[in-house]
Amino acid sequence: MKRFIILGSTGSIGTSSLDVIATNPDYFRAVGLAANRSVDEMCEQVLRFRPENVAMADLDAAHEVRSRVGHDTHVYEGSQGMLDMIRNLEAEGIVNGLVGSVGMIPTLTALEHDKDVLLANKETMVMAGKLVMEATKRFNRRIVPIDSEMSAIYQCLRGEDFNNVKRLILTASGGPFIDYTLEELRTVTVEQALNHPTWAMGTKNTIDSATLMNKGLEVIEASRLFDIPGEHIDVTIQRTSIAHSLVEFIDGSILSQISKPDMRLAIQYAMTAPERLPSPYGGLDFTKPFSLTFEPPDIERFPCLALAYKTIERGGTAPAVLNGANEQAVKAFVEGNITFMEIPEALNRILEEHTFIENPSIEELIETDLEAKRRISELVKA
Amino acid sequence: MKRFIILGSTGSIGTSSLDVIATNPDYFRAVGLAANRSVDEMCEQVLRFRPENVAMADLDAAHEVRSRVGHDTHVYEGSQGMLDMIRNLEAEGIVNGLVGSVGMIPTLTALEHDKDVLLANKETMVMAGKLVMEATKRFNRRIVPIDSEMSAIYQCLRGEDFNNVKRLILTASGGPFIDYTLEELRTVTVEQALNHPTWAMGTKNTIDSATLMNKGLEVIEASRLFDIPGEHIDVTIQRTSIAHSLVEFIDGSILSQISKPDMRLAIQYAMTAPERLPSPYGGLDFTKPFSLTFEPPDIERFPCLALAYKTIERGGTAPAVLNGANEQAVKAFVEGNITFMEIPEALNRILEEHTFIENPSIEELIETDLEAKRRISELVKA
Repeated sequence: MKRFIILGSTGSIGTSSLDVIATNPDYFRAVGLAANRSVDEMCEQVLRFRPENVAMADLDAAHEVRSRVGHDTHVYEGSQGMLDMIRNLEAEGIVNGLVGSVGMIPTLTALEHDKDVLLANKETMVMAGKLVMEATKRFNRRIVPIDSEMSAIYQCLRGEDFNNVKRLILTASGGPFIDYTLEELRTVTVEQALNHPTWAMGTKNTIDSATLMNKGLEVIEASRLFDIPGEHIDVTIQRTSIAHSLVEFIDGSILSQISKPDMRLAIQYAMTAPERLPSPYGGLDFTKPFSLTFEPPDIERFPCLALAYKTIERGGTAPAVLNGANEQAVKAFVEGNITFMEIPEALNRILEEHTFIENPSIEELIETDLEAKRRISELVKA
Repeated sequence: MKRFIILGSTGSIGTSSLDVIATNPDYFRAVGLAANRSVDEMCEQVLRFRPENVAMADLDAAHEVRSRVGHDTHVYEGSQGMLDMIRNLEAEGIVNGLVGSVGMIPTLTALEHDKDVLLANKETMVMAGKLVMEATKRFNRRIVPIDSEMSAIYQCLRGEDFNNVKRLILTASGGPFIDYTLEELRTVTVEQALNHPTWAMGTKNTIDSATLMNKGLEVIEASRLFDIPGEHIDVTIQRTSIAHSLVEFIDGSILSQISKPDMRLAIQYAMTAPERLPSPYGGLDFTKPFSLTFEPPDIERFPCLALAYKTIERGGTAPAVLNGANEQAVKAFVEGNITFMEIPEALNRILEEHTFIENPSIEELIETDLEAKRRISELVKA
């Protein structure tokens, strides 16, 4: 029986993770759940999964949950409460389904306290990939990716020598606007951007998919996670999200992981890796014809992708600036304060202004993130 | 430096293997070469690769080669001579590029004499898969497949637990007649059948590709090599021969190996496995759009495929009967003595007449093979 703590348990990754746990009650247990302020959903999850601990970031929500669940479940409060839960609760690993830069400290805390990190929160690796990978070595723990693209690469690399990797090819669905002209992209609405063709995800990830920033962040994440320079990572548009990324080895052989798009497959794999368990997800029907198309992305129309590569090359705080600024820019777009094509414009401007730090500490990364967000807010107001 | 003996060195697999060796002179050496009767080609190969031993199956050819190469190269003669070379010459493994049932004994001889078998000769596994796999265990040696489809599966299974395999999906180019109607198939010529759309191969394999018997034999081979029942092996038509087979695991995750169709990639991988070396083969250009289509095969029009599944289920000598009969039937077709659609008809008839042996010895398998060939010859004459 493997015990897991689920961060962001009421969100998209969190509920999918609990689905996987519910389907395999003999193998997995959710011993800790953490959410922001969704009281009703959390109370339902407590009733259903009987975790030992719960953490609510919002203080009022914590009090409310505490008054509604029994004494068997200890309820932590505030973001410090979540970290205390990670430190104190015995578990094989945490599922980090938090959204944005808040996912970084919990990742490091888990590694420091003898827990694997099943990572959906790509911002962690984008901001602090170097420090995180150092921590995995120091504490002899694993980062197992949950992102379907990272999971695909992780699976393709199983049993292979990392030194034999020639390049990674990340697949992207292309999002809802892949065929839009530059002109059309200038006038897309929030509703259009939230209508993703193949994946059901949270708001932030869905907008990031539409700008291709999602793929940009994954390029940065992959370069950190698999220790490979940006120029050896390519992106290909695979519209149906069936092929989930590819690894080319030095001999020209390419491995790819493919399956129906269902994030529960990657979540379950992360929970069992390197083993596997039967699952109802994935699979493909070969009794009917189907095809997989691969197309190069257009960096003119989707400049976020190019910005991501630029920050890998720049290194230091550059990816953290991009990530923090993007988080705030997406928020501004969803709130109707900037247009779709103003997102990359704003990011580019912030990147150009920023004074980079070569080997930032965690504190400097947090400050960089906040500063990037502040600058976007100022730009939006101006 | 790995030392290899190349059986069938002047044939399609043999020359490709020597290409790979020539490209990696610091890693591989061809220490023994065996061919049937191609004297000029063999003498050129001796000059170029300076093997320690040579074996010519044809006695006159052996004498001729002996008189033309220097004293440094010992020349064995006859099929016994080839086996003596395998026994006596020190090598890491043999590349078995022989065509047809003659490949079986050399495979077993190599395993018994401390050599891996890099196997292109699928007839070995079809006829005597069970005995061969037992021999790999007894002598603690490996069969590493060279067939692109088997190599793909072998690569996808690397680092995975065989018990986690749900099914294998073998890709087939479909051959030149994939879109022909039954009516059209009845009148195809030998020239049409020899015109393969994606792979450059020898005559026997090319005709087998056109009937889909090639895929049928591979289904049998895969069931032996990876110890998996026929009902867990599917076939899909992938016309461009870019995706080289897939493995579905119990969790629904599918791995596939893909690359440009070049048999040298699989040969080199077999020589280095589980390591890899740089190579100019394989790769794929993701800067241009391309697509991979997968279609189910039509067993009505290509009954050879169904016959193969039937023999896996039947077991014992059944696959050997199919294999031997097919070898002779292909010969009869190439010589213009039977039509294309008479190939599966003849095979079906021989299978129906045959008295099966449940656990055949090597001698019984050889006898079965000869008897099946004899029966086809009789049928053709009648």
